[in-house]
Amino acid sequence: MFLNTPTPVQKICAEQPAHSMVLNTEKFKHLGEEEVAKGKWLKLSKYMYQDQTGAKREWEVVGRCTKNSEKPDCVSTIALLHRLLKYDCMILVKQYRPPLKAFTLELPAGLIDLEEKVEDTALRELKEETGYTSAVVKHVSSVTALDPGLSSCTMKIVTVGVDGDSKENQHAMQNLTSDEFIEVLHVPVDQLLKRLNDYSEQGLIIDSRVYSFAIGLAMGKKMAHAGDIPHLQGQETFTLKEAILDG
Amino acid sequence: MFLNTPTPVQKICAEQPAHSMVLNTEKFKHLGEEEVAKGKWLKLSKYMYQDQTGAKREWEVVGRCTKNSEKPDCVSTIALLHRLLKYDCMILVKQYRPPLKAFTLELPAGLIDLEEKVEDTALRELKEETGYTSAVVKHVSSVTALDPGLSSCTMKIVTVGVDGDSKENQHAMQNLTSDEFIEVLHVPVDQLLKRLNDYSEQGLIIDSRVYSFAIGLAMGKKMAHAGDIPHLQGQETFTLKEAILDG
Repeated sequence: MFLNTPTPVQKICAEQPAHSMVLNTEKFKHLGEEEVAKGKWLKLSKYMYQDQTGAKREWEVVGRCTKNSEKPDCVSTIALLHRLLKYDCMILVKQYRPPLKAFTLELPAGLIDLEEKVEDTALRELKEETGYTSAVVKHVSSVTALDPGLSSCTMKIVTVGVDGDSKENQHAMQNLTSDEFIEVLHVPVDQLLKRLNDYSEQGLIIDSRVYSFAIGLAMGKKMAHAGDIPHLQGQETFTLKEAILDG
Repeated sequence: MFLNTPTPVQKICAEQPAHSMVLNTEKFKHLGEEEVAKGKWLKLSKYMYQDQTGAKREWEVVGRCTKNSEKPDCVSTIALLHRLLKYDCMILVKQYRPPLKAFTLELPAGLIDLEEKVEDTALRELKEETGYTSAVVKHVSSVTALDPGLSSCTMKIVTVGVDGDSKENQHAMQNLTSDEFIEVLHVPVDQLLKRLNDYSEQGLIIDSRVYSFAIGLAMGKKMAHAGDIPHLQGQETFTLKEAILDG
């Protein structure tokens, strides 16, 4: 009977625990802002806001000058390359990132052009940065935050499947501007976490979304193998190290 | 025989495709920097660098004033709550984030104190923000980037298991400063992606690492069910929508 009636358990899970502070969301208010400095692409501001106690507070904020409050700033794409007789691979991009003074491994991504739909940005940037087309959009995320404690930048994450055996993709060509230098990497999905750690040891900095996707993937596979019996899940001594070693 | 000798296939996958630009990593150089503006917490700078062609270029960069180049700026924690007879839950925090003028759903996280070890930051912040202790650190990520096109900020992602049935956790207490307002949420791991979309519809902004972890989790479960036969994986018409509906 327990297995057939999971709803009450789920309801309890979705609530706050009894010991949690409860936010009085009505009280928080954005009161105003003041520009501290403005570059060509970024600006630094001070935001004034009211907290839950009614106190007025300040917060330093970075935003893009191109910010359009109606839209997320950019799109990142989780692209899986499917080919006959080959392991599925994740399509990642390697590039020099001045802010980090280092090379990074990231999802193909880009800013959303004016009037552009999120799905179109995803496919356009995938084509420009990696050469791949013939991709099918499978999921578009809700709006997500890139660094919510520091910046106003938001992103949608799109997942696509890429048919590596199609004619277009057998003749794939990147379409980079003269100031873009992007290397395409195929990383086997099955070994993603292990490979990211290898790349990291070679000095690459991994994008945090790529890394957390990889952790999710490893955990998801492990959990599926552990079965779907809820009162056993908590008992399973899952360790990520095992998941990594398992492949 | 094919199934026993996956190495050649994996090797091909790990390389760049033939059509990819190859980066000449030796050529890229950080040449210098100039401060545009400095607040109490953040600063805006201009970085000069040399690209692959030898051309000198500029890039606008945001960084934390607290930046310690030896260490990542912060730690985020993927914390799974295990309890007897309950679904495993992810421990997330809801708070007002002035930069987004909105409430967010994020991983428990915090800046690394001077002299503090990454694991200690993870457990300290988990305790302060959510009240949970009796947690076991399972995995510490390599250094990851929060928003590599814009900022120098880096993060390590730590995964921990939390024993919800332990005495300490049955008497959990948050330990917040007077200017922190944090609500703890338990979200069933099994339904994570669906719940995130529900919260998003209610107006919460989801952290991009939480969302991409959830996508990975859904995909990993789906892939495990599809089996581990490599030449079948590419054929499987995986859609995330299915995964969401299934789970």
